[in-house]
Amino acid sequence: MSYLIGVDIGGTKTSVSLGNFRGKVLIRRVFPSEGVKATLSQIKRIIRAYLARYDRDLKRTKGIGVSCPGPLDFKKGLLITSPNMPTWRNVPLKRIFSRSFTLPVAVDNDANCAALAEKTFGAGKGVNSLFYYTVSTGIGGGLIINGEIFHGASNDAGEIGHSVVLPEGPKCNCGKRGCLEALASGTAIARIARERARRNSLILKLAGKRKDINAGIVAQAALKGDKLARAIYEQAAFYLGLSITNVIQIINPEMIVIGGGVAKAGPILFRPLVKTVRAYTWPRPYRSCKIVPAKLKDAVGDLGAISLLLKRFHLGAV
Amino acid sequence: MSYLIGVDIGGTKTSVSLGNFRGKVLIRRVFPSEGVKATLSQIKRIIRAYLARYDRDLKRTKGIGVSCPGPLDFKKGLLITSPNMPTWRNVPLKRIFSRSFTLPVAVDNDANCAALAEKTFGAGKGVNSLFYYTVSTGIGGGLIINGEIFHGASNDAGEIGHSVVLPEGPKCNCGKRGCLEALASGTAIARIARERARRNSLILKLAGKRKDINAGIVAQAALKGDKLARAIYEQAAFYLGLSITNVIQIINPEMIVIGGGVAKAGPILFRPLVKTVRAYTWPRPYRSCKIVPAKLKDAVGDLGAISLLLKRFHLGAV
Repeated sequence: MSYLIGVDIGGTKTSVSLGNFRGKVLIRRVFPSEGVKATLSQIKRIIRAYLARYDRDLKRTKGIGVSCPGPLDFKKGLLITSPNMPTWRNVPLKRIFSRSFTLPVAVDNDANCAALAEKTFGAGKGVNSLFYYTVSTGIGGGLIINGEIFHGASNDAGEIGHSVVLPEGPKCNCGKRGCLEALASGTAIARIARERARRNSLILKLAGKRKDINAGIVAQAALKGDKLARAIYEQAAFYLGLSITNVIQIINPEMIVIGGGVAKAGPILFRPLVKTVRAYTWPRPYRSCKIVPAKLKDAVGDLGAISLLLKRFHLGAV
Repeated sequence: MSYLIGVDIGGTKTSVSLGNFRGKVLIRRVFPSEGVKATLSQIKRIIRAYLARYDRDLKRTKGIGVSCPGPLDFKKGLLITSPNMPTWRNVPLKRIFSRSFTLPVAVDNDANCAALAEKTFGAGKGVNSLFYYTVSTGIGGGLIINGEIFHGASNDAGEIGHSVVLPEGPKCNCGKRGCLEALASGTAIARIARERARRNSLILKLAGKRKDINAGIVAQAALKGDKLARAIYEQAAFYLGLSITNVIQIINPEMIVIGGGVAKAGPILFRPLVKTVRAYTWPRPYRSCKIVPAKLKDAVGDLGAISLLLKRFHLGAV
């Protein structure tokens, strides 16, 4: 059996998996992300331990894949900068890991990796074109065309969180107005709830303090039937739905996959979302597009990094 | 020298060109479209006349390309139906022309053909990814990815006219609300002008009667400095600009090409349009994307049909 190593560097935690060509994770370690040096050292230590245990003479391990926040230059494997990890600047990830391990290294941003993971091992198996949404603190996306990540002219394809769904809408962190992220992200859901929850609201009871309201608490309240919480999720779902409509009208993909923490809310998000998409999209491309929740869980980043290796180095059929 | 035949079947007129591999049109005939039978017979007569004159023994002519309104099944070469040509239903164009001429035949819809024509012979030469807008009575589009037409799951990729740019906006002919076509097409521009032009307005003077106001007249009035006409074009440009922003954020193409009758208005449309795109799009993908008017003129459909042949049958480099 051959192995692939998948590394997922995130704003709060980093994970390293040893997996096989079929996307089975054999062993996985997670630790809190720290500064650049400490995090990279810890990743290397974990990889060395895996190799010592499973593949001492490096005969079966075929590569290291790395998923990390963007923007980055995926060809050079260079993390340029990241809003959530400000100390990570111009980090030549590919060079660093190639030198340490003399193995092929592939790097891509987290949303692209998750999209490819879902296409390779998850909800999108066998599908040629899909658009992946990750709806959590922010909203990101990845575009799969002809089975491959489509990067675009400046590696910014898939940045759906900053498409405009409501002209003159609320201000977004990116400086623009009416971005999807400002209307449907976890941050937006929490912000709206903090603004609107009354003193005796269930949302406030569950959170304790107004400032502790987050999207998960709003989802909890919605599940318990709280009207405001439901309305907030319906509104977020409406804008997400409009965005999906636009992706379908423009790209006509076979599938839309929705992942990220906010998607865990389930039907309180998906039901109104699908209703909006059905209402606003032409019938034929709507019927040709499955809209599904992401299938892969915590290790989606690690598996994305692994699926990158399979694609970039043509490491056999999956 | 080898020849390719390009046929462009439109709602009001049909054209047939004999061109070469470099997109030079050697001879072109245009006639008013009629019923299915009459139009097809006339196309065949013209092709026979070309062959009799230029290629009697069919040694140099390499194929027939056909551009026509959609929706269609481009693989089968079957025109399924068309809102603007209601008598054209399930017309097996590929079979009809293959049988008559024993030549390779390629068929695609008009917006896709125009997109590929601009990529092959026009504004997009050398570009790998572009999105083509045709802004006229309606708004259509074509998506070029990795140098090829991207058709999507149900041949509906590129239907940008029915992406939503203003939730709860004006009603569109397609039955939805807030579609780009309902806000920025020639029909929308004329409708808004008919609603808003005052008795002594320049628009009304140029048109004569209110019902005769069209987008071209509004453009004329705008060029002469009429404030209402300018405001109407600015508003249309704003929504077109938002749509372009979304295409750039989602696909990050190298180029946006804008064709169709409304694009002929020039700077009164392009200046506010580019201003909107710059304001709403992230700087890096914005800088990576050229926004340009279409370069090909009347024969864009014929050339699109010809460029289809070059792609589908790998008929040599252009």
